[in-house]
Amino acid sequence: MKISELSQRTGVPVASIKYFRRQGLLPAGRATAATLAEYGEEHVQRLRLIKALTTLGGLSIAATRDVLAAVDQADSTDGTLKAISYALPVPVAQAPAGDEERETEAEAAAEADAADLIAAMDWQVPDDSPHVHGLTTVLRELRRLDANYRLDRLAAYGELARSIARLDLERAADFDDSPALAEQAVIVLALSGPVLELLRRLAQEDQVRRRMEARESADS
Amino acid sequence: MKISELSQRTGVPVASIKYFRRQGLLPAGRATAATLAEYGEEHVQRLRLIKALTTLGGLSIAATRDVLAAVDQADSTDGTLKAISYALPVPVAQAPAGDEERETEAEAAAEADAADLIAAMDWQVPDDSPHVHGLTTVLRELRRLDANYRLDRLAAYGELARSIARLDLERAADFDDSPALAEQAVIVLALSGPVLELLRRLAQEDQVRRRMEARESADS
Repeated sequence: MKISELSQRTGVPVASIKYFRRQGLLPAGRATAATLAEYGEEHVQRLRLIKALTTLGGLSIAATRDVLAAVDQADSTDGTLKAISYALPVPVAQAPAGDEERETEAEAAAEADAADLIAAMDWQVPDDSPHVHGLTTVLRELRRLDANYRLDRLAAYGELARSIARLDLERAADFDDSPALAEQAVIVLALSGPVLELLRRLAQEDQVRRRMEARESADS
Repeated sequence: MKISELSQRTGVPVASIKYFRRQGLLPAGRATAATLAEYGEEHVQRLRLIKALTTLGGLSIAATRDVLAAVDQADSTDGTLKAISYALPVPVAQAPAGDEERETEAEAAAEADAADLIAAMDWQVPDDSPHVHGLTTVLRELRRLDANYRLDRLAAYGELARSIARLDLERAADFDDSPALAEQAVIVLALSGPVLELLRRLAQEDQVRRRMEARESADS
């Protein structure tokens, strides 16, 4: 198909398709003339993946390139899962800085909390994992801001996170090392976050409404 | 304290403090001269909250203003929780568009799935909730991209989301309608997402590593 049909099929504007080409996110089409290329179903699939990662997944172009490279270099199921996991952007990568001396103390306390929590969960992850760094950052801010901060409450979140990760891997790891199925893993790992966040927000909304109704009927 | 000390205490540059003032996020200090103002502990606390929402929470200035307005107009615990929940930005608000006809079909199928899932969870939420709209968007993309898409698998996420929302509200709702404690609710609701996402990513990393080790010992 021509680039115009590729655009129509995927809803991605021609200019964006050309941009993704230049950025190395999308492979070249088969050249049919000096200025014409023929695209196939693999381009449709790849463009949909790019669109999902950059819009729903919230990935930057650079992060999308890293994730797609991990997909294309898929040598083993588990190796691919690890590469994808590390290529996906970490929330709270941007660490707000404060007063320097207080900051050092707060950082040390948050590092100790992160290590305690990870040990309590029996999670075997390297100290230099970007996720350990991210957890330290968010615990530092919670320690400062959350009047009810208690590490044991966070362990309850940890147990639920473990159950969610199991569901994620069941959906993602059900593949046999082919690139098409590595794409499946990307979709699951990148989009589980937004799905879960929305379900959590819906459950919150439901529970707040039930509290309000219970209170109103108690008042009347 | 002067603005320079407020900056040092919070790690927020003076220029940013002035910007937050102009944007209506931070209340004025007590004027002590034509060009001098005196700031108090309430400004330190508010600035930390602004910093947490805009960096860790990933909120825009406009969304931060909405959330702080909900905090300041806190009239009842539950009303505040609802206002905060609606003021927080919804993931995947940006809906990627595709081929128009296919899009209409896909949208209708995703709306039906979202309604089915919400009914299966017995979540009482209005149809025009931003979270219902967000869920529809992400389900539409999952239907298109996820080869293993099954609504019953998402129901398992729904059950875990319900447990997480309970933990969130236990931490957030433990307050008596005062503005200081509405701040607590904001912190919990806005920062639970990043905390949970990091814990889920750590649990994934641990489980991938265990799979790799099990496979290596099986191979040797």
